[in-house]
Amino acid sequence: MSVELLEEERLDELHRNGYFIIQNPRKFCFGMDAVLLSGFAKVKRGETVLDLGTGTGIIPILLEAKTQGKHFTGLEIQQESADMARRSVAYNHLEDKITIEIGNIKDASEQFGASSFHVITTNPPYMTERHGLTNPNEAKAIARHEILCNLEDVIRESARLLKPQGRFYMVHRPFRLAEIMVLMHQYGLEPKRMQLVHPFVDKEPNMVLIEGLRGGNPRITVEKPLIVYKEQGVYTEEIYDIYGY
Amino acid sequence: MSVELLEEERLDELHRNGYFIIQNPRKFCFGMDAVLLSGFAKVKRGETVLDLGTGTGIIPILLEAKTQGKHFTGLEIQQESADMARRSVAYNHLEDKITIEIGNIKDASEQFGASSFHVITTNPPYMTERHGLTNPNEAKAIARHEILCNLEDVIRESARLLKPQGRFYMVHRPFRLAEIMVLMHQYGLEPKRMQLVHPFVDKEPNMVLIEGLRGGNPRITVEKPLIVYKEQGVYTEEIYDIYGY
Repeated sequence: MSVELLEEERLDELHRNGYFIIQNPRKFCFGMDAVLLSGFAKVKRGETVLDLGTGTGIIPILLEAKTQGKHFTGLEIQQESADMARRSVAYNHLEDKITIEIGNIKDASEQFGASSFHVITTNPPYMTERHGLTNPNEAKAIARHEILCNLEDVIRESARLLKPQGRFYMVHRPFRLAEIMVLMHQYGLEPKRMQLVHPFVDKEPNMVLIEGLRGGNPRITVEKPLIVYKEQGVYTEEIYDIYGY
Repeated sequence: MSVELLEEERLDELHRNGYFIIQNPRKFCFGMDAVLLSGFAKVKRGETVLDLGTGTGIIPILLEAKTQGKHFTGLEIQQESADMARRSVAYNHLEDKITIEIGNIKDASEQFGASSFHVITTNPPYMTERHGLTNPNEAKAIARHEILCNLEDVIRESARLLKPQGRFYMVHRPFRLAEIMVLMHQYGLEPKRMQLVHPFVDKEPNMVLIEGLRGGNPRITVEKPLIVYKEQGVYTEEIYDIYGY
């Protein structure tokens, strides 16, 4: 089918169900974190899913391909990203399964109503406003730094948006792990499962995948490490698996 | 020198400074957790250290051998273990460097006074009273289950006992990681460094080593995984290193 690609945009294959995604490499492309989160998150048949800060819609599109979920909503504050996400949804003929909405994560429970989703996924900005260089590119800065919403907003709104026993899946940076656990516990999204992602087996982790259960008891399963590279430039079998090659 | 060994007791070599330790295999012998904690903990020249729930004194004895700390205190509630620990201290001629005291972790800040140590180490009971089979052997049960004190007691008392900017080192089980982080944050012992210990590289971790800083900011370093076995029955180099072989 024909798809409207704006200047600098390109169409990337997702290796899942023949799906494609529209991205603009000058703005923001999805990273391995989004793909790993789509492999870590569990969505059961008939469940509804909300992705907070969906960007170009990569997580709802991958989860639609991989799971039997009933409906997927992506919330994005940036008009341009949301527009790309909607065109990708249309290109893949997923208008009945995926909806992209515009709004701020901070007010998401007002926008969608409390206790309205079975599952929440999120790949939020990792960096505090103060930490690291703020990207001069506004779109990238908003995606990477806690400019328009922070970790507490993400967790507070997720706790409100989830149905009782609903599940929360987030990818983040390990240096914020203590804050993540404290806030999840504080808002009643008890951490239940965690996996650390290491570039190499003998290196510090650079991502953490975490599952929370609304109303769960404090007992967490820490999974075996997820190693990205077997050797320089060669992914491990697990990574190929998650990417669907 | 001569050492008084009671029935069933044996003298085990520690591969550090020619030190030995007295243990009773029918009661409780130190495990890899204590050794790994002694490798993870950092004690600087001139610092004072308190080990909460010291058992047979393994952690103070190893730390005395490995560091330039000024003085080491071991707190133990079980008379029999404390007695063995004191005899080991005497056997190694460490009476000036290591003191073994009897008491309950619950009341440790009353016993020793607030803000009185630079460093606290602890290998506390891992299991809640309800979790797992309570060992019919009373001594083992007290060492393994939260019968006489629980995780919150350990963390609350450590926060009180440490000087400002004092450091807390604990080995525990990963299934309690969220609780650990929540309590440490709550009592102002901010988690700053963490290492997960995996029996094999492709297995879930079975221990977690954690460092807290009294009055620290929330930013944690998650280290590379510590892998115990290279193959069945063969330790990795790192483990041999920590054991001092």
